[in-house]
Amino acid sequence: MLETLSSHAAFGGTQAFYRHESVACGGPMKVSVLLPPQCKEGPRPALYYLAGLTCTEETFVTKAGAQRVAAELGLVLVTCDTSPRSARFVGDDASWDFGQGAGFYLDATEAPWSAVYRMETYVTRELIEAVEATLSIDRTRRGIFGHSMGGHGALSLSLRHPGLYHSVSAFAPICSPSRVPWGEKAFSHYLGSDREAWKAHDTVELLRTRRFPSKVLIDQGLGDKFLSRELSPDLLEEACRASGQDLVLRRHEGYDHSYYFIATFIEDHLRHHARELAPR
Amino acid sequence: MLETLSSHAAFGGTQAFYRHESVACGGPMKVSVLLPPQCKEGPRPALYYLAGLTCTEETFVTKAGAQRVAAELGLVLVTCDTSPRSARFVGDDASWDFGQGAGFYLDATEAPWSAVYRMETYVTRELIEAVEATLSIDRTRRGIFGHSMGGHGALSLSLRHPGLYHSVSAFAPICSPSRVPWGEKAFSHYLGSDREAWKAHDTVELLRTRRFPSKVLIDQGLGDKFLSRELSPDLLEEACRASGQDLVLRRHEGYDHSYYFIATFIEDHLRHHARELAPR
Repeated sequence: MLETLSSHAAFGGTQAFYRHESVACGGPMKVSVLLPPQCKEGPRPALYYLAGLTCTEETFVTKAGAQRVAAELGLVLVTCDTSPRSARFVGDDASWDFGQGAGFYLDATEAPWSAVYRMETYVTRELIEAVEATLSIDRTRRGIFGHSMGGHGALSLSLRHPGLYHSVSAFAPICSPSRVPWGEKAFSHYLGSDREAWKAHDTVELLRTRRFPSKVLIDQGLGDKFLSRELSPDLLEEACRASGQDLVLRRHEGYDHSYYFIATFIEDHLRHHARELAPR
Repeated sequence: MLETLSSHAAFGGTQAFYRHESVACGGPMKVSVLLPPQCKEGPRPALYYLAGLTCTEETFVTKAGAQRVAAELGLVLVTCDTSPRSARFVGDDASWDFGQGAGFYLDATEAPWSAVYRMETYVTRELIEAVEATLSIDRTRRGIFGHSMGGHGALSLSLRHPGLYHSVSAFAPICSPSRVPWGEKAFSHYLGSDREAWKAHDTVELLRTRRFPSKVLIDQGLGDKFLSRELSPDLLEEACRASGQDLVLRRHEGYDHSYYFIATFIEDHLRHHARELAPR
């Protein structure tokens, strides 16, 4: 099911890159997986990472420095690509914030995108099935986290699929895509012009009726150039307060939107997930 | 002297990218520097990293995961490029192991390379002067380390410049370039056909008459595809034994030549340098 592209010893475990067929995305998709050393003894919980605009399955693996602590804690790290890559459409590479590298972790309903821009089905069904069928992964405990567009993905998918994920966190997430330029551009193309339909993919809106599976950890840099225009952490904070959702939102002076920010705080996120995913 | 290209908060310190003019290399060169938080209080020792074939000043910064421990230990990390980049010559990009990205950390003596392929002068003089003149760096304690071609650079430059560096280590270094294909190709073009002249840039040969400033740490993966053809750690071990040089050479089952290998063992190298650079 998973075809191995490459495999590297890392921190006593293995950092592997795979390819597999996706029906939802209409062709092969690439996946990276860190298998911690504990997988040799038995299945371990997996933590799914969703990357931001322009990234691939390789970005987090290369830049976040997550393997050390994941190998210590016995967490499998799974990272996928940020859009379908096989089928191509006119305009899908005209800008860096839409189309290729910008799937927004939803199933498009508007042509032509609806044919294969189905990242929600891919992430929540096909990806999980592929790695759980093949690798030493505990099927009862899953975490999800992400950065920026992938933070939106982690937050919204965990709300939209109750019971699927058991721990959630995000770095600089797009908290309310239906209200900001990145989200307006993507949603209008993928979901059409009816803004009511957008709310089902907007974390702040979803929190009116839904709750996360456990306490949520969010880190946000205050030197992030996208903060005021695209990210809306204040709205998330307000929505969590209104619904009684347990949230730890940390604001960090001077930190920007880069993987240097992620690398600085990745250890806290991995320990957060390990705690929330621990057998009770 | 250093023009800032970008700067990112990281682990309480700053990961910065600079450009500066190099006379030796005939034009601007790029440099990356991690300034640990301790630099705000006073000068800290700097550790110079030399990268391998095809890399740039960015590779180590992105992939090695070194910032966390350097920020803890108060070590400045300086990384430069792997060749001059401004002047271009016919054939300098014909292969990945010669010319662009493959300066071998020596001053070429053969035309046309001798005009600007002068990475030894650049690394041991201009780079040090540029960062020490501008940043909060302790001028009395310097370390040097590197990977593959950069491991050759770290080992040979520390032997060729007694007193300049006070601690040394390497990941999968080319220990005896004058005896292996990578070195033969580079040295014959940069230094000419007289193999006697090559010995002055060959760590194993230099060890006949010289010693490192302190104990040397080397890590080598046994799953490294370049090991038997290019790296010769056995010759280094033998030369150190013959000369009474204190060497810790660790061989690691399954690890390859990649930055996953480096990331796995980077913490040990940084702690090695911090120990050797500590005030006595």
